[in-house]
Amino acid sequence: MAPNPQRPRVVIVGAGFGGLAAARTLAGRGLDILLIDRANHHVFQPLLYQTATAALDPSDVASPIRAILRRDRDTTIIMGEVTGVDTQTRTVSVKDIGAFAYDYLILATGSDYSWFGHDQWSAHATVLKTLDDANTVRRRLLSAFELAESRADPEATARLLTFVVVGGGATGVELAGSIAELARFTLARDFRRIRPQSARIVLCEAGPRLLPTFPPRLSDYTATALRDLGVDVRLGAMVEQIDAGGVTAAGQRIESANVFWCAGVKARPAAAWVGAATARDGAAAVRPDCSVAGHDEIFVLGDAASLADRGGELLPGLAAVAAQQGKYVARLIARKVAGRRSPGPFRYRDLGTLAVIGRSRAVAKVGRIQMRGFPAWLFWSFVHLFLLEGFRNRAVVYVDWSVAWFTYARGARLISDVPSDERAKFRDQAA
Amino acid sequence: MAPNPQRPRVVIVGAGFGGLAAARTLAGRGLDILLIDRANHHVFQPLLYQTATAALDPSDVASPIRAILRRDRDTTIIMGEVTGVDTQTRTVSVKDIGAFAYDYLILATGSDYSWFGHDQWSAHATVLKTLDDANTVRRRLLSAFELAESRADPEATARLLTFVVVGGGATGVELAGSIAELARFTLARDFRRIRPQSARIVLCEAGPRLLPTFPPRLSDYTATALRDLGVDVRLGAMVEQIDAGGVTAAGQRIESANVFWCAGVKARPAAAWVGAATARDGAAAVRPDCSVAGHDEIFVLGDAASLADRGGELLPGLAAVAAQQGKYVARLIARKVAGRRSPGPFRYRDLGTLAVIGRSRAVAKVGRIQMRGFPAWLFWSFVHLFLLEGFRNRAVVYVDWSVAWFTYARGARLISDVPSDERAKFRDQAA
Repeated sequence: MAPNPQRPRVVIVGAGFGGLAAARTLAGRGLDILLIDRANHHVFQPLLYQTATAALDPSDVASPIRAILRRDRDTTIIMGEVTGVDTQTRTVSVKDIGAFAYDYLILATGSDYSWFGHDQWSAHATVLKTLDDANTVRRRLLSAFELAESRADPEATARLLTFVVVGGGATGVELAGSIAELARFTLARDFRRIRPQSARIVLCEAGPRLLPTFPPRLSDYTATALRDLGVDVRLGAMVEQIDAGGVTAAGQRIESANVFWCAGVKARPAAAWVGAATARDGAAAVRPDCSVAGHDEIFVLGDAASLADRGGELLPGLAAVAAQQGKYVARLIARKVAGRRSPGPFRYRDLGTLAVIGRSRAVAKVGRIQMRGFPAWLFWSFVHLFLLEGFRNRAVVYVDWSVAWFTYARGARLISDVPSDERAKFRDQAA
Repeated sequence: MAPNPQRPRVVIVGAGFGGLAAARTLAGRGLDILLIDRANHHVFQPLLYQTATAALDPSDVASPIRAILRRDRDTTIIMGEVTGVDTQTRTVSVKDIGAFAYDYLILATGSDYSWFGHDQWSAHATVLKTLDDANTVRRRLLSAFELAESRADPEATARLLTFVVVGGGATGVELAGSIAELARFTLARDFRRIRPQSARIVLCEAGPRLLPTFPPRLSDYTATALRDLGVDVRLGAMVEQIDAGGVTAAGQRIESANVFWCAGVKARPAAAWVGAATARDGAAAVRPDCSVAGHDEIFVLGDAASLADRGGELLPGLAAVAAQQGKYVARLIARKVAGRRSPGPFRYRDLGTLAVIGRSRAVAKVGRIQMRGFPAWLFWSFVHLFLLEGFRNRAVVYVDWSVAWFTYARGARLISDVPSDERAKFRDQAA
């Protein structure tokens, strides 16, 4: 599809925080905007673990992209998988659909989990990146308890009720804390033949402390808070093996039917599409204005890009970085099109980092301010409610959270859409 | 697993309206209750079409069985698939799990769709019975619009945007009306290259009128209301063929990528398990107290059973019938165990029938009272909110409905968990 020669066409790949911010900022400026994403929804990733642990519904943490951008009449949305970019003819190829020409290209393709060269582990561990992943994690968690209840074999029960989370970053911490609460409070009275409270939750972190991007004091607080919830926190526990029976970490074997992988991150292949130099984990090394060397018309942002701040430190893989870059690049393109001079280099404004440990406990770092415990959790709640897309989500999440707060109930604990291979696999593990 | 000889064991198969009512009524009477269901959740079937059309989240219309029965300490719940009953040894076999002994057995296995001998049609049409079905219908509906938007081919677009609903009972009427609203209002401003309003929704009913269990006056009103919404209502349109390209009904071909089957009903194989005589569509012919001839300890109820009321007319396949039978049978068993005489035969108390056509239109029949239009819809809303399981669902559904009412928005329109075979199939249809 060729763009209208009168109106420059901006193609954006990815509707995460970066792509969406770019699309919103570009709207209404007389440009022809095409947004391509594999999914029909934007995922509010910071709350995805709550869907994975049955506290929130999928639609509480995901919004249809078309609904978010409904008022932007210049923006066309295509649900499809980008397979490559031809920088000569300036076209983006979308699988099964065709090629789309661009004048400007914004690649906001995000990141994927890295298996550190052990791709075979992916057959035995579940990741948490997309809405489908969250559904899978939820199904596995709940099915483990169901299978343990229906089988009387103590060995199988122990394996089914052992949950191993690999990676002590924010996602790993949040997932481990949330599984512990699910087992100890939410499901406590749901079973007759097993005691959900007896579930073992093990968090393996290869490094010396949890949440390495936070100050050490908050890392220590986090480990203590997780241990209070009953989580077996193992530091310096590098994972050496993951197979159908469990995990080996730091020489110790943990028999488990439920392994969740929240470790290394790698950028999706945006850099390769446009022949950009790559930095850490495959991210595209971009210039200070987020463009790719040799291509003033191509920008890469968010987790797909590698960019240092003024101090020379690489920007972290946070939603806020991607969103600010999206806005920045959109304004830059608008200025170019209008024939105005380029803005200065991108500057990241640090809005803080947050990680939640459980019901009413969190850690937060905002500039030099550090918070922990209930104040951090309250701050976290407000920030997330405020950032969530759309009124409907806010209202429903508010109801869900209020009910969960008072009752520890999790309404969304449904097992559905079990793929046949997963069914067979679980049957084996319960045997 | 053998029951405790001191406490009679009641095994209930199926956690629909009938099984759940029985379980609740039996609780706290000193019995050992075992409830077996294939899913971990009870589905509020009358609202399932709202999940299928993205108005409600899965957890708005489904509740975990364990959460519903959490206070009933005598009740054990097993998630598993019953494969048969041995009436000699009085045991129920559950796939991959084992056999469970019973003193009393309640079979509340519900119904399935009947393909009228054309089982091959099931490959090309989607049914709406379980939560998974609702997710599939939703995914198909939304994917059809996405595929049409991304492809420029007018012929494929026409096929993708034609939705055929087969069967003019309550589910068919509700689904057709809801798809029409989705296309005409909710999605109206979401697309740039297609006009969702141009979608064709065809409702095929083989008989002479819609909602055959309602008075003819309400059937006529329903047809008119659906036509007002833009639904192509075809009466006397017996379906003769369903294939990958569409449907042939009453000799007329309708090219469509989206066929939904809401036609014939057949009982699940409960009757065969216990060697009961079968009536209409495989349902077990039961005695006036819902027991099976020759087995005073086995009861079949709801859609799985066939029972006539005092006037000789067969009881309809409604949630209310199943729930009342469940309660009745539970009381009967409790009396038997207590050595008291049996109650009289089961009597169905008609609480009315409802069907909703769209935003603010419905038809209702309560005894001799007939309602239609907005009063019927209001009545329907209150009844359903009241009947929904648990506070959390009521509060969330209230928010969802309120928002939907004012905005026509449907927050739950997410495409997720696409099975690989479905992905390939849709690709073919879009080609």
